Amino acid sequence: MPTTFAPLKNDTFLRALMRQPTDYTPMWLMRQAGRYLPEYRATRAKAGSFMGLATNPDYATEVTLQPLDRYALDAAILFSDILTVPDAMGLGLSFAEGEGPRFAHPLRDEAAVRALHAPDLGKLQYVFDAVTQIRRELNGRVPLIGFSGSPWTLACYMVEGGGSDDFRLVKAMLYDRPDLMHHILSVNATAVAAYLNAQIEAGAQAVMVFDTWGGALADGVYQAFSLHYMREVIRQLKREHEGVRIPSIVFTKGGGLWLEEIADCGADAVGLDWTVNLGTARKRVGHKVALQGNLDPNVLFAKPDQIRAEVERLLNSFGKPTGDSGHVFNLGHGISQFTPPESVNALVDAVHQISRALRA
Amino acid sequence: MPTTFAPLKNDTFLRALMRQPTDYTPMWLMRQAGRYLPEYRATRAKAGSFMGLATNPDYATEVTLQPLDRYALDAAILFSDILTVPDAMGLGLSFAEGEGPRFAHPLRDEAAVRALHAPDLGKLQYVFDAVTQIRRELNGRVPLIGFSGSPWTLACYMVEGGGSDDFRLVKAMLYDRPDLMHHILSVNATAVAAYLNAQIEAGAQAVMVFDTWGGALADGVYQAFSLHYMREVIRQLKREHEGVRIPSIVFTKGGGLWLEEIADCGADAVGLDWTVNLGTARKRVGHKVALQGNLDPNVLFAKPDQIRAEVERLLNSFGKPTGDSGHVFNLGHGISQFTPPESVNALVDAVHQISRALRA
Repeated sequence: MPTTFAPLKNDTFLRALMRQPTDYTPMWLMRQAGRYLPEYRATRAKAGSFMGLATNPDYATEVTLQPLDRYALDAAILFSDILTVPDAMGLGLSFAEGEGPRFAHPLRDEAAVRALHAPDLGKLQYVFDAVTQIRRELNGRVPLIGFSGSPWTLACYMVEGGGSDDFRLVKAMLYDRPDLMHHILSVNATAVAAYLNAQIEAGAQAVMVFDTWGGALADGVYQAFSLHYMREVIRQLKREHEGVRIPSIVFTKGGGLWLEEIADCGADAVGLDWTVNLGTARKRVGHKVALQGNLDPNVLFAKPDQIRAEVERLLNSFGKPTGDSGHVFNLGHGISQFTPPESVNALVDAVHQISRALRA
Repeated sequence: MPTTFAPLKNDTFLRALMRQPTDYTPMWLMRQAGRYLPEYRATRAKAGSFMGLATNPDYATEVTLQPLDRYALDAAILFSDILTVPDAMGLGLSFAEGEGPRFAHPLRDEAAVRALHAPDLGKLQYVFDAVTQIRRELNGRVPLIGFSGSPWTLACYMVEGGGSDDFRLVKAMLYDRPDLMHHILSVNATAVAAYLNAQIEAGAQAVMVFDTWGGALADGVYQAFSLHYMREVIRQLKREHEGVRIPSIVFTKGGGLWLEEIADCGADAVGLDWTVNLGTARKRVGHKVALQGNLDPNVLFAKPDQIRAEVERLLNSFGKPTGDSGHVFNLGHGISQFTPPESVNALVDAVHQISRALRA
């Protein structure tokens, strides 16, 4: 399906990811289409359930565009969930109200692990349809980001069967049966790469791998069980589509100690959480990758003046971007559902104004 | 109350904290007296509730000694809870079955914050009585560690009213009303220092400050709102008691990026979680402080051979301790209640045997 999309009017985000000069620091927010917006809650109510929302391309398009209509953001991100891939593998995803994700068939024994295969991408057609529809309706305003969970982060949910605060089951398998864990991760890496490539073919202009739980791993174990498989994903990704470069971002929450190794994984950009000093991170790896982040989302509960002061501190910490460095402003984690929507106005204005002034 | 205690038979732990030579690497486990032990569960049942257990010096003594009767551990740690101090401030601590701590009167407004004062230590007499009784019943087998939560970690519970996964309320106060947060932290620092000094006077031979939630803070914010107040606590601590040095340990979970700054806070030793490479940590700060840690507690769900292999990897990473360095083996977090007790035998044997061989 060769599709012709409108030319891009604002490529600031893509330029920053590729460490090219920009007039200001581009920004978007993890989970920018979400529960803190009343218009999102209205669409969610129409859809009936979270999966009803995520699997319907019309609804997914609607909520993806909502934050762009409110705020001068420099990128859109596909509205979806990181667990669509294991769902398509047959694990049976559901979201109980107010409880987070649940798998009906978690991987708990050798037979279940050995039966695991990368999914038929046809089962994820609703995602690719949403990507194409969003890209079309964006009409070139800003680039569209596709995404996936990392192989390790998917494995956490696949073995635990849902969220966890100690990762006891998945780590018990990792330490007790590393062969089984490597099998899951290898299947996941193949699936994630194919999933992201299909998003690229459907219209995604950049892709991001969310390694939400990599930071729960021990030093040494992270490299072998999370980073290794992200490198494998990045290696298999299409670097360009129809002659246009498709930059990639990897984000390990809590991965600040491993920044040099992460920056070597082949991705164009690395996401940072708020524990990392942005200026130090730039010195460590800013000549190899662009950096994305890293405001604590809880700053958005403060007053506009304080939001502005924190933004200024962060932009000054990175300093003036020069030829070989790039910075995309973001939070260090998804925006809280309790965020006052007007705080985001203060944030966007501050990032754009202060970063323009910094370059002047 | 001048008390004469039996002379110490095993001072390996204290020597390692002070970076003096030892024949092997001493070890203890965070939460070593706990639910994974059937004898603990039996005492807990007799006591009726967690607070019934923690506030009764006889029961507290009983459970503190239980892991030492099973395992060749090199230190005992007072059985208590980090939230005894805010409870004594009048916040009303309780533990609902299977739900974690709750405060009846969390700090949610300016009036509540301004009314906060360091507690009358008389309200914590049950803790000091337990310390003295444990020290007496230890009869010099191993040293006794006293402890407290850090000012910031206590503040998290005091404002949130219990556990949290996003620290929204306490961080909202921090960013929106830093003056109120500094007031809480300043009161907490005074209270924690007095509490630890009273434990030292009652018989504690080393003290540890648990900064469980410092790693949730942004770079820069951690230094100002957690580390600053731990430095204040350490500064006010008795460095010796009755002519004997009382070493101190600080542990910020998730604080690996700030290791140099933490090592400068005045403590004798720094605790590490499993995300930190022990060899790298030694190079960074091992000439200034002893290091304590840092096995992922989930390793204890593997078989003895794999437990041994992970211990070996960790001890080799630190390398042979020399004149100016010290290592105390521990987990990087509390032991899981689901740990098979026999795994701890494998762990203790591995640490003692391999570390002796490493020095030979």
